[in-house]
Amino acid sequence: MDDAGFMALALAQAQTGFEEGGVPVGAVLVGVEGRLLGAGRNRRVQQNDPIAHGEMDCLRRVGRLRSYAGTTLYTTLTPCMMCTGTILQFGIPRVVIGENRSFAGNEGFLRERGVKVTVLDDPACAALMQRFQRERPEVWAEDIGEVPETPPTGQS
Amino acid sequence: MDDAGFMALALAQAQTGFEEGGVPVGAVLVGVEGRLLGAGRNRRVQQNDPIAHGEMDCLRRVGRLRSYAGTTLYTTLTPCMMCTGTILQFGIPRVVIGENRSFAGNEGFLRERGVKVTVLDDPACAALMQRFQRERPEVWAEDIGEVPETPPTGQS
Repeated sequence: MDDAGFMALALAQAQTGFEEGGVPVGAVLVGVEGRLLGAGRNRRVQQNDPIAHGEMDCLRRVGRLRSYAGTTLYTTLTPCMMCTGTILQFGIPRVVIGENRSFAGNEGFLRERGVKVTVLDDPACAALMQRFQRERPEVWAEDIGEVPETPPTGQS
Repeated sequence: MDDAGFMALALAQAQTGFEEGGVPVGAVLVGVEGRLLGAGRNRRVQQNDPIAHGEMDCLRRVGRLRSYAGTTLYTTLTPCMMCTGTILQFGIPRVVIGENRSFAGNEGFLRERGVKVTVLDDPACAALMQRFQRERPEVWAEDIGEVPETPPTGQS
C-alpha cells in the first residue's frame, strides 16, 4: 500500500472519531515492508483523556516495541508539540501528514531533528478538520491547550 | 503542602510502579492553592503502553481540563522529550523534578519556552531509578526509545 492508501486508513479513523463526537484526527503506524502495526484516533472526548491525540492513541494501541526503526507514522493532521516530542523520543524516522492547513504543526522541528516528513495536503483531511473546528471550536481549543475566547457552557 | 511533600506523593507512585515490575517514575499534578488534581505512574510494563510515562499517566488520570493555568507538575525524573512536548503543548507553567542524575532530560528546552523548572535533586528518587536501571536495563532502554546493546531474551 502506498502513502495515499495508509492515509485513507488514518482518515477513516478520523471520520469514526468525528461520528463519535470526538476530535477527528486519525493515525496509523506502519512497519518495515509496509506492515500495518496499528491504528488509532483522538479520544479526548470519548475517553476523557487529554493525551489521547490520534498519534498517541495509535502508539498506545500498537503497544510496546523494542524499536521504531523503519516505521512510518501517518497522521491526518500535522503533529502538535506533544506528538512531535513523542515522535522524537521514540525515534520514529518518518512521518506522513495528511494536511497542515488547519493547524500550525512542528514539521520544521521534526526535520531539524532528522525526521523525514512528507505532507500530502489532502483536501479530505482538511475538510473534515475544518468542519470540526467550525462546529466545535471550544473542544478544538481544549485539545491543543488553548483557552477559548468564549467560555463554553459545558464541562469545566 | 510544599514541593517536598508533593514529591513524596510522586515518589510513592514510583515505588508502587517498581513493586508492580514497572518503570519507577511517578508524577502528580497540583492546581491552584495546592489542590491535588491527580497522580500517576509509568505503566509501560503494566499496561503494555509505551506512552504511559509517569507524567502522561498522571495527565490522563486527571482527565480533561479547559486550562492548565496555575498548575504544577511534579515528576520523580526529569522529563523525556515526549513529556516535555506535552508540558509545552498544554501550557503547564511549572515543573518540579525529583532528580536529573539518572537521565538527561530537557530542562533547558522547558526553560527556553518559559516553563519554571525546579530540580529538587532528591536522593531517594535517584536511588530508586538507579536501582531499576541496574536491574532492568533492557526495559529502561525501551522506555526512552533506545535500542539496548544486548538484545533481551523477553518480549520483542
